[in-house]
This record gives sequence, structure tokens and C-alpha cells, in this order.
Amino acid sequence: MTKRIISELYKGFISDSYPFVIMAQLARQPFSRGEYRDRLHETQRRMEDRGLNVLLITDPANIFYLSGYDAYSFYVPQILLVTPDRDQPVWVGRDQDYTCATETTWLDTDNIVVYSDEYVDSEKHPMSFVADILNNWGRADTTIGVEMKSDYFSAHAYHELSRALPDATFEDTTKFVNFIRMVKSDAEVECHRQAAKISEQAMKQGIDTISAGVSESDAAATVYEALLEGTDETGGDYPAIVPLMPSGKGTGSPHLTWTNEKYEEGEPVILELAGVVNRYHSPLTRTIFLGEPPEQVRTASQIIVDGIEAALDAVEPGVTCEEVEQVWRERIKGTIVEKESRIGYSTGIGYPPSWVEKTASIRPGDQTELQPNMVFHMIPGVWFDDYGIEISESFLVTEDGAEVLADVPRELIVKN
Amino acid sequence: MTKRIISELYKGFISDSYPFVIMAQLARQPFSRGEYRDRLHETQRRMEDRGLNVLLITDPANIFYLSGYDAYSFYVPQILLVTPDRDQPVWVGRDQDYTCATETTWLDTDNIVVYSDEYVDSEKHPMSFVADILNNWGRADTTIGVEMKSDYFSAHAYHELSRALPDATFEDTTKFVNFIRMVKSDAEVECHRQAAKISEQAMKQGIDTISAGVSESDAAATVYEALLEGTDETGGDYPAIVPLMPSGKGTGSPHLTWTNEKYEEGEPVILELAGVVNRYHSPLTRTIFLGEPPEQVRTASQIIVDGIEAALDAVEPGVTCEEVEQVWRERIKGTIVEKESRIGYSTGIGYPPSWVEKTASIRPGDQTELQPNMVFHMIPGVWFDDYGIEISESFLVTEDGAEVLADVPRELIVKN
Repeated sequence: MTKRIISELYKGFISDSYPFVIMAQLARQPFSRGEYRDRLHETQRRMEDRGLNVLLITDPANIFYLSGYDAYSFYVPQILLVTPDRDQPVWVGRDQDYTCATETTWLDTDNIVVYSDEYVDSEKHPMSFVADILNNWGRADTTIGVEMKSDYFSAHAYHELSRALPDATFEDTTKFVNFIRMVKSDAEVECHRQAAKISEQAMKQGIDTISAGVSESDAAATVYEALLEGTDETGGDYPAIVPLMPSGKGTGSPHLTWTNEKYEEGEPVILELAGVVNRYHSPLTRTIFLGEPPEQVRTASQIIVDGIEAALDAVEPGVTCEEVEQVWRERIKGTIVEKESRIGYSTGIGYPPSWVEKTASIRPGDQTELQPNMVFHMIPGVWFDDYGIEISESFLVTEDGAEVLADVPRELIVKN
Repeated sequence: MTKRIISELYKGFISDSYPFVIMAQLARQPFSRGEYRDRLHETQRRMEDRGLNVLLITDPANIFYLSGYDAYSFYVPQILLVTPDRDQPVWVGRDQDYTCATETTWLDTDNIVVYSDEYVDSEKHPMSFVADILNNWGRADTTIGVEMKSDYFSAHAYHELSRALPDATFEDTTKFVNFIRMVKSDAEVECHRQAAKISEQAMKQGIDTISAGVSESDAAATVYEALLEGTDETGGDYPAIVPLMPSGKGTGSPHLTWTNEKYEEGEPVILELAGVVNRYHSPLTRTIFLGEPPEQVRTASQIIVDGIEAALDAVEPGVTCEEVEQVWRERIKGTIVEKESRIGYSTGIGYPPSWVEKTASIRPGDQTELQPNMVFHMIPGVWFDDYGIEISESFLVTEDGAEVLADVPRELIVKN
């Protein structure tokens, strides 16, 4: 059976049910139409609760969630329009991306609308095009939700939209779809599990490769190769954040990328990466020490591991994010480890620049209650004057507690 | 000499001059302080011409250009402030990225200002913090340039900023720094040349690997490995856009990413990639045919190559972008090849989601005059009903014409 025929099957015959085996593979249309309809209906239900007539979505992760649209084309404006009554969202994008939409979304072609190239990097802005659509729908004077904090909804886009729709009422719906995404379906959980297997493999590859005398860029090359090659079951999708692998003093700077300097004996190396399947991320971090670590590094690592394990033990449905953080905080109290920033966040679908879901954070004040099928990345990065230690786990909330997704020894990795 | 000591040298002793050999390597501080000062002075000169009291920069490429800041942390708000009188820009970012700034920028620590973690994914927005700085400088009621179309200046960020600075006058300076970046220094050109060598190598690796029966994700893994591993002279930096490698009918969809389906005999595969050194991109694209191509594919490829060569021949200082496009257009006239969208754009520094510089496009109406040391990616992608062909070159404008940066046969690559 060729991929063309499979693709037709996706669209037509296999509509509401779907063999789970497909979930173990990168695919152009990884979810069933039934699942997309469920996502849409939940969105529409919440829109009605909030009195929204239109949801204007610009975050690529939210567009993917509701439509399936998946291409590296989000550097031009792309918009998904949802109304409470339409039975599919409408995708709006650039003309040359039309077939990306037909190939990857569950939408009928009537619901794929493109603007011409004269709107690209020019004075004409696609939001005036979107305003015309809303005018045609008779929704120019209604309440429209816009993602004010989305990276892909620029100040100018909002300016153009509000100028073209002077009678509309705009509401900030930045995290509206993100919160719907937060509780995963079983099919999404399967993507996370497969992604975690890729994370394990890439981490093992990284640990094997990173040694004194090896250049950072060569190590990055090897880790990337493992991330994309994937497992026997599935290839890997690209991560929203490149592998972060600072070394030495740089471990105090968690977001530094690699150079082509060589690793040196006697220094720590942090490796933060995420396996990805169908845009679902399972991030994982370990700290590797090249040579015999100083006592302080060993001690601090053990404290961090203890803190993580205590926090993981505290996870169960109904517990709040801040309660989980509190357990961590209590456990490290009075030790050499101090931690001001959040120790984790919910994760899932991600496009550059981030795999953070931007809903709940594991930190004081966040009263989000854990529910089964939420996925978090717990990453209490700790930075001292000269170095940092990061050890992290992605976990799924289950009825019983936390299911840690990847299986890599939870400790300071010492390479002697 | 350890990397720590080299890093100190960068900051101190080697100030205005710089051995070019450093340019051939990924480095935390690849340019001299003298070069940064030149960039700043040119920016300040243009600010005065335009009557700007503050330039508030949010585009990571522009921040990198003026400060050297380079880390994968642009998913939280980062701001560079330039005034006509200060002798360095001021970088504003998240507290945990402070040492990323000390490690990668030429700025004195006084000019590195951080906001705490309570501003991250929360109700408090860093723009209120920035407004406080401008207030302290007595610039709250002045003319402030903001990048309204930047991906990393959200509608909300502008809202918060303008609310906090009600007496300020805001001007859209989206492409202000981009246009300064457009003419490269010799050190920047050297980055492009080194990046092109990486592009060549990754392209050769891709052509060798892509074959019927190989999975797309395995091919992507190999290409990525080659991009990061780099050449004997330098490792590779990550590209702002992942390698795009659609196959079969997917070649009509230029921005599709890979799945783990296998390539099939008798189909075209497009490979668009960019080698990157110190964030400078040299994109390159070839179309590979697995097996004997249909006559139409051969014919169309030859027409595209002829068109590209005619357009490259037309490049010289003083010629406009639209004149270059006109030569392409004339050459393909009356053939089976039709092309509506632009055939190229200026390129240089790039961060996700794009390596496009967003200044000049090679298309009708763009009257930007070519100048020596500009760099363009000429990519006249042509899409038919069932497939597409993309063959591209990055080129440097020299006193004499176009210097094509990578050396890969400019033709349809046939793998029999």
C-alpha cells in the first residue's frame, strides 16, 4: 500500500476510529477525525461559556491541535478561525502552503483559505485579509478572542486587525486553547511515551559521546542524529528547542548553545533535550561530570535528586502545582541547594521557540489541580557561582500518581 | 590556553582588531569590539536622522547583531535598548540568562539588566520593567522605535509598554536594524563563506543518503548531523529553519517537514538546508530524482537553472532587485515554468522561525539597489500539479557581480 493510498484512507474510510499502531509513527495525519471533532467541540463549548463569537488562533501549537496543520511555515502569518457553530475550523495561510494544509489537516478544502504572496514581507498584512473573511461571515462586530501574548501575533498584526474591524470587541484568549490541550487524550499520551523512548536513546548517545577532547558541535551533531533517527518504532520529529548542552562555567547559563570548543576533563556538562513524536515533546535533562566530581557537585546532585523524588511522590490527581513545589522546597530546605524560579511546567505540543505549554507552572501561587493525562517537565535547575546542575524528568499524571516517562538513571552521570 | 582565558582575552586585550582565523570557528564572541562599535554608531546615526530617542529591539537577530547576545532563550521577552548617546546598548532579559549575556555580549555588566522569574508566563509583563528603565533615563515621553512586526514583540507586549508609557510616541522600526545588517562586514562575509562549505557538505550527505527505501526521518538525521558537525575548519550552528525535505507529491508543499515514511523509486525529493556559522546562514536547495525523471521534470529543471544563471549574471552593484527578477522572468517566458512569488530574499543572521532578513526581496516592485557585501538566497521554487522543483543558490554581491557561495552542481540531481 503506497503512502498516497494510506493518505486517502486517513481522509475517508478510517474516520472516527484509528488503530493505535499509527500513533507510534510520525505521520502527516496522526489523529482520527473523531479526536479532532472532540477537540473542536470542547473549544466551542468553552467559547460559548465565555461569550466568544470567534476564536482567532495564531499560536502554531494551538493551530496544530485543532486542525492538524503541521509545516515549518509559521514565519509568515497563519491563522485558524473557530466559531461556535461551524463544524470545522478555517485555516488561513500563504498560497504556497495550501497543499501543506490539504496534506496535514482534517479540514475540507472549503475551509482552507490562502492569501497571495503580495502579503508576504510587504505593506499589505494578512490580517486585513482575515478581517474580510470575518466581515463576510457577519462577525465584524462581535466578540473575538485573540492570543495577545502569542509569539506569532505581532503588535502590528493586532493593530491591522483592530483597524480593519473597528466594531469588534477583542478579548485576550492567549491560553484558552492551551488549557484545553493540557489534559491529553490516550493517543496524545502514546506520542509522549514514544517521544520519551527517543529522549532516552538520545541521552544515552549524548552520555556516550560527551568526553574530554570532543567538540561541543560534534556532540550536538550526534545528539541531533539520535533525536531524529528515533527508535525501531518511530522516527523523531524536530524539537522546538535545540539540545542545550552548556559545559564548564557555561553550565551556569542554561540556554547557551554549543560552540566548537572541546570539552575538558574536570568540568560538568548539562544535556537538556527532548524526543518528539508528532510534535509532542518529552524533555529530559542530565548533568554529566567529566572526571571525578568535587564533593559539592556530588552532594548538590543528590539533594536535587531527593527533591525531585519527593516532589514526584507528591503527584496525584487533585493536588495543586504549588503543593508539589512545596514538597520540593521542604525537602531541600537547609541544604546548599537554593531555588528561586519554578521547578517545572506543563508540556506537550511545541513549535519553536518553545515546548512549554504556558499553562501551569510548578511554583508557589499556581493552584492548578493535577488531573490524569497531564504531562509536566520537572526541571529544578540549580545554579551556583561557577557551575550549574540540571536533572529533570517528564512525567504523566495518572490515577495513581506520577508515571515518569523516560528511563535513565536519575543521578549525576560521572564519566571517569 | 584554556577557553576561559581566551574568553577573557576577547573581553579585554584584543579589542579593536581580531585575527580572522577566529571567524572560521563557532565562538561565544565571534566579532571584535570595534565591529560592534561600528554597528552601534551606524544605528545611532540613523536614529538621529529619524529623530528616534530610543530604539527598543526585540528581534533576536537584531539583538545579536548589536550586542552579540546568543542563547536559545528568546521564548521569554528579551529587549535591547539603544539610545543615541549611550556608548553601549542595554540588554534586558530573564535573571537566569544573566550569564548568557556576560558570556556572549560585548556589554559591560552595568548594561546587562535582568527581571526576576515572577515575570515569566505570568500576569506581570517584562515591558513594565522596561518602562521603568526608560522612566529612570528620563525618556518616558520621547520618541521610541519598536519593532511592531517582530515575532517576538507580541500584541500584549506593545499594549503593556504603551500603557506604562502613556506620554511616549511610538514609531514602527521593524526593519530599521535589518537594513543596517543588510551590507555585511568582511568578518560577516567570512561566516557566510564558512557556512556555505557546511551547506555543501550537508547537501552531499543528503544526496548520498536519500534513496528509495530510506526513511525520511533517517535522512533528516543524517543531514542534521552533517550540518552541526561542520567542516574541518568549524563546527556548525543550528539553522533557523529545519532542513525541509518533502518528497513525491509533497514536493508541491515546500514547508512540509519529514515523516518516517520511506522514499519511493520514481519520485522527486527536495532538500532545502542551510549551513550556519555564528548565526549566519548560507541556504542551499537541490531537487533529487529517485530513478529516471519524466521528461517534463528534466525540462523544467533546465529552464529553472537557465533562469537562475541569467539572473545571477544580471547581479552587480547598482542594479535593483526588481531588475534581477525581470531577467529571470524574461528568460522563463513562454516555457512551461510559471512563477508568481518572489524568487529570492536577503539573508544573514537568523533565529527560529526564519533565516529571511526581511529587507529586500527579488520581486517586481522592490527597488533596493544591490551593493557589495549583500547576501541573497535566490530560490525560485516552482510547483506543478503533482510535484515541485526547487534549485537555489546563496550569493554574495561583489564589485564584479555575484559570487555563488556553495559549490554543488546546479542541476536536477538524478539518482539511478
